[in-house]
Amino acid sequence: MGDTAPSHDSPAWAELDALFPGRIERGHALREQHAVGDSWHPAMPPDAVLMVETTEEVAAAVAACHRHGLPVVPFGAGSSIEGQVQAARAGLSLDLSRMTRILRISPGDMDCTVEAGVTRQALNEDLRATGLFFPIDVGAHATLGGLASTNASGTITVRYGTMRSLVLGLTVVLPDGRVVRTGGRARKSSSGYDLTRLFVGAEGTLGIITELTLRLHGVPEKNTAALASFDTIDDATETVVEAMQCGLALNRIELLDASQVRAINLYNRTDLPEKPSLMIDMAGAAAQVAADMDVFGELAAARGAVVRPADTPEDYSALWKLRHSALYAARALRPGCKSLSTDVCVPVTELPGVIHAIRAELDAANVLAPLHGHVGDGNFHLVMLFDPDSPKEMDDIRRLHARLIEMALRVGGTITGEHGVGLGKKSYMEAEHGEALDVMRQIKRALDPANILNPGKIFDL
Amino acid sequence: MGDTAPSHDSPAWAELDALFPGRIERGHALREQHAVGDSWHPAMPPDAVLMVETTEEVAAAVAACHRHGLPVVPFGAGSSIEGQVQAARAGLSLDLSRMTRILRISPGDMDCTVEAGVTRQALNEDLRATGLFFPIDVGAHATLGGLASTNASGTITVRYGTMRSLVLGLTVVLPDGRVVRTGGRARKSSSGYDLTRLFVGAEGTLGIITELTLRLHGVPEKNTAALASFDTIDDATETVVEAMQCGLALNRIELLDASQVRAINLYNRTDLPEKPSLMIDMAGAAAQVAADMDVFGELAAARGAVVRPADTPEDYSALWKLRHSALYAARALRPGCKSLSTDVCVPVTELPGVIHAIRAELDAANVLAPLHGHVGDGNFHLVMLFDPDSPKEMDDIRRLHARLIEMALRVGGTITGEHGVGLGKKSYMEAEHGEALDVMRQIKRALDPANILNPGKIFDL
Repeated sequence: MGDTAPSHDSPAWAELDALFPGRIERGHALREQHAVGDSWHPAMPPDAVLMVETTEEVAAAVAACHRHGLPVVPFGAGSSIEGQVQAARAGLSLDLSRMTRILRISPGDMDCTVEAGVTRQALNEDLRATGLFFPIDVGAHATLGGLASTNASGTITVRYGTMRSLVLGLTVVLPDGRVVRTGGRARKSSSGYDLTRLFVGAEGTLGIITELTLRLHGVPEKNTAALASFDTIDDATETVVEAMQCGLALNRIELLDASQVRAINLYNRTDLPEKPSLMIDMAGAAAQVAADMDVFGELAAARGAVVRPADTPEDYSALWKLRHSALYAARALRPGCKSLSTDVCVPVTELPGVIHAIRAELDAANVLAPLHGHVGDGNFHLVMLFDPDSPKEMDDIRRLHARLIEMALRVGGTITGEHGVGLGKKSYMEAEHGEALDVMRQIKRALDPANILNPGKIFDL
Repeated sequence: MGDTAPSHDSPAWAELDALFPGRIERGHALREQHAVGDSWHPAMPPDAVLMVETTEEVAAAVAACHRHGLPVVPFGAGSSIEGQVQAARAGLSLDLSRMTRILRISPGDMDCTVEAGVTRQALNEDLRATGLFFPIDVGAHATLGGLASTNASGTITVRYGTMRSLVLGLTVVLPDGRVVRTGGRARKSSSGYDLTRLFVGAEGTLGIITELTLRLHGVPEKNTAALASFDTIDDATETVVEAMQCGLALNRIELLDASQVRAINLYNRTDLPEKPSLMIDMAGAAAQVAADMDVFGELAAARGAVVRPADTPEDYSALWKLRHSALYAARALRPGCKSLSTDVCVPVTELPGVIHAIRAELDAANVLAPLHGHVGDGNFHLVMLFDPDSPKEMDDIRRLHARLIEMALRVGGTITGEHGVGLGKKSYMEAEHGEALDVMRQIKRALDPANILNPGKIFDL
C-alpha cells in the first residue's frame, strides 16, 4: 500500500478471507480492543483482526499482506505503553495471543522454547516443578513475544539482564512471509550477525516473532527484602550508588519517592512511611543474603534511613505486591486523568542529579508525577498525571518530558530503558542516535522495503 | 573495486598518499605481517598498511577507499584465528593497534571508554587501583576492538557473558566514512535497533570499531581453584552438567582431555595426572566460595574424581597459567605441523554425546587432537594437528571438522562459540542459519553496497 489507496480497499482482503475463511474479523469491539495498548496515545483501530494459531498462519497472512502492501501490526497482550500496537496506518492486526504452547523445557540445559503468545506468568507456572524460572519481572501480564519486541526488563534486570540477554534464539516471520530461525540453543555464538538481538527490541518492524528460545535460571535458595525510608531523595539515590559499588547479591533495588509511597498507601490502604524509599531484595545462598542485607542496612543507616525488614515469605510477597501496584496507584491519584510514564535510563551516579533537577521543574510547574524505578540499572519512571482536556497541562507534560530526555542524553543516558519507542518517543530518536538513526533506517528499508510491518513505529522513513 | 581492476592500481592510493603523506606503507615485511593472524589459513597480504591514530583518520581513510571501491581490512593485534585479518581481496590493511588511549574510567558507574587498539591486559593494568576489572579472559593479547569484532569470550564467560553483553556502546566508522555512535552509557536501552550488538561480531564487515564503552565488574573477594582428574571423559562432562545445574559460584569450569593434559605436562615440565580433567575456579564471598567448592568436590568424587585444590595465590596462578598454555602446548606436540582449532558450542547436556562421538572418529582416523574448552558454556576446542604437506591428513582434518559441525548443529549448537567465521567457517554458515543467512546478506548489502569492508569474510555475497 503506498500512502495513497485506503487500506480497507486493498485486494489483500479478498486473499486473506480466502486463506482464513470467517476468521478475518471486522467487528467494531474487536477492532477497538486492538486499537490501543496501555498508553495515553490515541486509539488507532486496524481494518480487521486475525487471531493466528501457528507460525505457518502468520507466514501465510504476512505473505498475502506483502503481495498487496497492506500494513500488518503484531499484537500480544496489548500491554505496550508507547503505542506499539496502534494500527497507525490501519491494515491487519495480527493477534498472537492464542499461540500459547510451551514447546520444550530442558531443565538440564536451563532453557526452553515457547510460542510468542505465552505470558511470562504462564511460563513460570509451568516451570514451578523444575526449580527454574524465567527472570523478567514486569508489572503487566505481557506475552513473551511482546516482551522481546520491546526489549523489556523490569525489577530483577539488575541481576539477570534484559530480554536481549535472555533470548537465545527466535523464529521470525519476515516482511515477505519467509520464516527464519535465528540463534539456537548454544549459550553463546560468534556465527555471523546477531540477528536475534536485532529482532529483539525492533517492535515488530523487521519481522514478527512467533517462537522464542529462552535462558532460564535457578530459583535462588533464599530471598529477603527490606524497605528503607530516607529523609531526602538524594540520600536514597546516593545509597543506590554505594550499594551497586559493593557488589551485593541484589535481586531488586527499587526507588519510590514520597508521592509514590503516598499513592501506594491510598491505593492499597497501607501505612508505609511516606518518604523517599528503597525497596530491596537480596537473593542467593542464605548466609550471603543475610550478610549482604547487613551491609545494605549499614549503608542506608549511614544516610539516615530507617530500614524495615520484610523477611517472612508473607511480608516479602506483600512488599513486592505493593511495588507492582505503583503505576496503577499513581494513576489513581487523579481519577479520570491520563498519565505519561517517562522511561529514561542514565549512568547510576547521574541519578541523583537528574532526579533532583527534573523534580525542581515538575514542582515549579505544579505537575503531579510520582516516581518509581529500577534504579540499580539507572532507570526510573515519572508517572506524569494530566487532564487530557487541558491544553496547558498537555503542554507542560510535553515540555517536561522533553526536558527530562535532554538531561538524560546530556549524561550519556537513553530515552527509553525498557518501554520502547513506539509512537511516543519517535521525535527524540534523532537526538539520541544522530547519524546512527540512518543506519537503523537503512536496515528497515533493506528488510522491509514496502514498509508493511508495523509502519510508523520507532522512526519514520 | 569491483572484482575487475587490480586493487593496487586503484586511484584511491594517490588520494591516500596525499591524505597520509609517507604513512601508506608498502614494505614487504609489514605487508606480510598484516597478511595473516594466528591461523592455519594461507597468508593474504594487503597492498599497503596504514597505522591510524584517531577515529578521524580511520574515517578519512575509509572515505577515500569508499570513493574508489578499494577494500579495507581492519587489523588489531593479529591474533584472530579464522582468517579475519587476511586481505582476501588485497587493498588497505588499517592497523588500529596504536589507538591505545583509555579515554575514561568511571568507577562509580563501573564502566569505561577506550580506543579500539587497547588490549584487555592494558585495560586491566589501568584498572588495578579501582578494584574493578574487565572480565574477558582469552589466551591471546588481543585488542578490545578485535575482541568485539569476533564477539570473543573465553574462560570466565560462564560467569560474566561474552563481549556482546559487556559492550555498552561503540564508535564505528561506516563503509562510506561516516562516524556513528551506538548505544551509550546506560546499562540498558530499548531505543530502536540494537546496532551495538550488530557491529559486535560482524568482523569488520559492516563498520570499523574505533572506540568502545565497556561494562566493568568488581574483583571478587576470593578466588579459589581446583583440578579434578577423572577416569573417563564422560565422567568429567557429566560432572559439568551437574555443576551447572547446582548454580555454584563458578568463575571458570574448563575441560581438558588426557592428551591435552599430556601436552601441557610436556610443554611446561609439570606432572599433572594425565587423565580427563576439569579445572575449576570459584569466585565470590569467601564463605560462599568455600561452600561451593565443597559441593563441587562431592559431585566430582561421586564420579570417581581425585580433586587437587589450588587455593594458595601461587597455586591458583600456576594452574591458570597452565590452562592458558593449552593451545600452544597442543601445537607443540607435533613441531612443524599446523593446527585447526574447532570451536563448536552446544547445549551443555549434549557435551558428553558430542565429545564421545567425535573422539571415536578422531581415533579411527588416527588424528591427534587434544581437547580443551569452556564447557560451562558448552564450548570446546579440538586442536587438530596436521602436516600441511600431507593431502591425506588435510582431507581427514576437513572431513572430521565437517563431521563435528554436523553433530553440533544437529543438537541445536553453533559452528563457532567464540572464534568467529572469518574465512574458515564460511562454508558452514548456510547449514547453521538457512534462510537467515540471506537476512545477513541483506544487511551487508544495505550498509556496504560496494562491499569494501573486509570483503569475503563471514559469507560471500
